Amino acid sequence: MNRYTYPCPLRWSDADANGHINNAVFLRYMEEARTRMFREVLATDEEGRRRNAFVVARATIDYKAPLTYRDEPVDVHVRTVKSAGASFELAYEIRDADRLYAEAVTVIAAYNLDTGRLRRLSADERAFLARYSSP
Amino acid sequence: MNRYTYPCPLRWSDADANGHINNAVFLRYMEEARTRMFREVLATDEEGRRRNAFVVARATIDYKAPLTYRDEPVDVHVRTVKSAGASFELAYEIRDADRLYAEAVTVIAAYNLDTGRLRRLSADERAFLARYSSP
Amino acid sequence: MNRYTYPCPLRWSDADANGHINNAVFLRYMEEARTRMFREVLATDEEGRRRNAFVVARATIDYKAPLTYRDEPVDVHVRTVKSAGASFELAYEIRDADRLYAEAVTVIAAYNLDTGRLRRLSADERAFLARYSSP
Amino acid sequence: MNRYTYPCPLRWSDADANGHINNAVFLRYMEEARTRMFREVLATDEEGRRRNAFVVARATIDYKAPLTYRDEPVDVHVRTVKSAGASFELAYEIRDADRLYAEAVTVIAAYNLDTGRLRRLSADERAFLARYSSP
Repeated sequence: MNRYTYPCPLRWSDADANGHINNAVFLRYMEEARTRMFREVLATDEEGRRRNAFVVARATIDYKAPLTYRDEPVDVHVRTVKSAGASFELAYEIRDADRLYAEAVTVIAAYNLDTGRLRRLSADERAFLARYSSP
Repeated sequence: MNRYTYPCPLRWSDADANGHINNAVFLRYMEEARTRMFREVLATDEEGRRRNAFVVARATIDYKAPLTYRDEPVDVHVRTVKSAGASFELAYEIRDADRLYAEAVTVIAAYNLDTGRLRRLSADERAFLARYSSP
Repeated sequence: MNRYTYPCPLRWSDADANGHINNAVFLRYMEEARTRMFREVLATDEEGRRRNAFVVARATIDYKAPLTYRDEPVDVHVRTVKSAGASFELAYEIRDADRLYAEAVTVIAAYNLDTGRLRRLSADERAFLARYSSP
Repeated sequence: MNRYTYPCPLRWSDADANGHINNAVFLRYMEEARTRMFREVLATDEEGRRRNAFVVARATIDYKAPLTYRDEPVDVHVRTVKSAGASFELAYEIRDADRLYAEAVTVIAAYNLDTGRLRRLSADERAFLARYSSP
């Protein structure tokens, strides 16, 4: 399957006073998986990185089962759902092999942090995203 | 208008390396507004609190404009969209008077943390939620 | 008394799975008080801000009593202990009028984020720090 | 050497608006290493865990070099410095093989979360701590 997987280590501090990994922390896990997935297409210099950034424009997440702290990482699977001129959609599953904790979709906009404006996805970025889309 | 408003103070650490309040932090702001809004219907003893808890079952958030750190709080407006037997929906606007940063909806499930099972909303909880719904 | 006070609002998510405001979060409260205190001497443009930044070089904190989440802010008092050519010391008390939760000292270095080198405190910065030192 | 090492994975969100891993986050890294180190002596049931908890009573940390986000974990080394009836001291180094980012000491108190009182370290806990002390 054409997806990226980051086995995301939990932190004890990710749990809230209810003893569950807090709902907002799931967005951190998704961000961390996405950051690692995109390392190869991100500019390596600060100026290029700011001109060719990405920002989250929309997020939808369904919490399916409570996740509690443990030593073992939780898998964050990421795949491309669709891609347009200046944005794309990623779908996520946060899960163990036999248990789904959450599934989510984010719309990500290609964004120039210096001008504060949307930008077009480059050919390299589109090719990169295509590698993680299901046939 | 029948809504609850929490003027939520920002923290410098809410901004990420891009200099914007991070997308996951918006869920913290919503949680904080909700926590304060619900203080009056929450059980005050730990046992009651765990038996009559709430958990986020679904969240959808649209980011409309970048929010940067400043001294002034940002308003988090919360209102009830609908209410069912064991869950309800809240809608949020995170905004200044003249600028909308994000709008969101969460489905919240009434939940017993000790049994790990859904529970029914009480009459008091339903009456409380009704106060924040638009006519 | 020559000190700066920020009444720091708590967040429910500051509590950890033990139900106490987490020890690391106290450093956030101190950072937030410091950030607000220093607003008037900080450069307002991004380039000036990076050239005239401050970084924490050392922190010592004593936790005196557990702090639990509540609606009311907790006071963070900050005063200057001493000031040298390229660094200074701040002392903090995190407390209610009648209860001390933590006291702390941080050594702060004047730092140029762009060169990664220490810098000298300006006359304005030294005058600012002197205003918060006890006679 | 008698020490515990946790190769702690960084998160992009650990960096602050200055682009460095935030000073407060180092306490999270230390907490995470400590939590994993202590798994084998911690009670596995919630009641035992609360009666036989640990809390940070004092922390001192020296920041030696800026740490920036990268894919590779950073090593958190932990060793016992000393141990008394109801508390003990741990020393930490947060480092790569060739670069020290921070060193720290925490005083940890043995604590009963339900009574809010200190408790005595058990023989098992003392034996566990002795394994990580230098000869």
